[in-house]
Amino acid sequence: MHSLQFTGRSSSNGMIERDFVVDGVPGVLWSPPSAAERAPLVLMGHGGGTHKKAPAMTGRAHLLVTGPGFHVAVIDAPGHGDRPRSEHDEREVAALYRARAEGEPEGPVVVRYNDHLARLAVPEWRATLDALQGLPEIGADGPVGYFGINMGTAIGVPLVAAEPRITAAVFGQHWPDVLAERAKEITVPVEFAMQWDDEHIPREAALVLFDAFASKEKTLHANSGRHKELPRFEADSAVRFLARHLGGRQPAPGRELA
Amino acid sequence: MHSLQFTGRSSSNGMIERDFVVDGVPGVLWSPPSAAERAPLVLMGHGGGTHKKAPAMTGRAHLLVTGPGFHVAVIDAPGHGDRPRSEHDEREVAALYRARAEGEPEGPVVVRYNDHLARLAVPEWRATLDALQGLPEIGADGPVGYFGINMGTAIGVPLVAAEPRITAAVFGQHWPDVLAERAKEITVPVEFAMQWDDEHIPREAALVLFDAFASKEKTLHANSGRHKELPRFEADSAVRFLARHLGGRQPAPGRELA
Repeated sequence: MHSLQFTGRSSSNGMIERDFVVDGVPGVLWSPPSAAERAPLVLMGHGGGTHKKAPAMTGRAHLLVTGPGFHVAVIDAPGHGDRPRSEHDEREVAALYRARAEGEPEGPVVVRYNDHLARLAVPEWRATLDALQGLPEIGADGPVGYFGINMGTAIGVPLVAAEPRITAAVFGQHWPDVLAERAKEITVPVEFAMQWDDEHIPREAALVLFDAFASKEKTLHANSGRHKELPRFEADSAVRFLARHLGGRQPAPGRELA
Repeated sequence: MHSLQFTGRSSSNGMIERDFVVDGVPGVLWSPPSAAERAPLVLMGHGGGTHKKAPAMTGRAHLLVTGPGFHVAVIDAPGHGDRPRSEHDEREVAALYRARAEGEPEGPVVVRYNDHLARLAVPEWRATLDALQGLPEIGADGPVGYFGINMGTAIGVPLVAAEPRITAAVFGQHWPDVLAERAKEITVPVEFAMQWDDEHIPREAALVLFDAFASKEKTLHANSGRHKELPRFEADSAVRFLARHLGGRQPAPGRELA
């Protein structure tokens, strides 16, 4: 059993926030203020170059905790957030910046580097899930979901393919190279987001990855706009999807109309 | 001005239902029980072979009336519901049944027949909208949306292309032949549903139609499953989309979790 040490605790905006470490990997667990009963757990993967408490993570966690009442955990990916960068990380990040500066496609670098990170991160996630399930408010047999876009999908697809405890997943915005083969092993319900006018990921490539999931129930959401223009209402949709499949309280009314 | 005669009125399930006729075309108007203030109007197009009060229509109307508090109108398409079939209708329906019986593709017959029906139905819809906007609870300058799948898209795309009063539309599940050219004239926000494993409409054909809309804001929802397996939660999504763009009350909490 992997042990979990809590290293900090605060409370704001309707959530308890606890920092933790499992086997040296730093993470954060957001929970409802009154976790008297067990609640489902959502693992969230952050994007490339960001970290466990980036605004996209805290925003989605807030929706999941204050809406359906879930626990939400994020860990820093290798070379990200509070973790040191290796020489290999430095080389790949430099290669990415070089591709951008020279107007070369980012895809080949991102696909290769994310595949490297996923190989490290999947066992870290599984150890983290072991440890989190040791908490009484989560438990060893409760529902577990996954939600990660971009690098969160590069890590999440092999994680969900390997991890039978995860029973619903939200993915999106990644190339099918490397991932499509693992996606064919995934049979749990999937919601997948792509940007119709993505300047990095060709439309056909995104459709190939969506098509690869073996899930009987899967939904593609394609929105007009460029890579970074994923609409905010897709986060609300992901929350509804996870609430539908993991259970949990009904979301607050009309959040997305606000 | 086209005049509207009400021909029946009842009330059930949280809605006022009024039958009406405009220029000989029969329709139904569903409204909130207390329409003291003006509310947006959604025009809904029914599917081929069905009619204005088919279960898909009453179900979607119920979501729109009891959720955001909209008025919802449906008229019978030519040759459908309470309207007589012409000889041309009879020939085309026979051709469709023949194609089905012989295992031939339905597309060519459906595309041709729906195009014929749309040419008749668009001016009927515009006259109906004129008449409905004469009602004090709707008014001449309130928001108007459109929601129609299958034949409702075949009629709706040319209607929305021609009708500047309609400012948001939900479409889906149709071939791009005929329609793609008109879709290029549509610039209002669009939500478009397709079935990823549709046995009638090729995947590529559905994507071509979605791609054709000139709307700055458009969203594709592609769900696994065959033609008739469009998930129920897409109706909830359409209601949220219309509420977001037309205004109106917030939907009741967690309807789709029920």
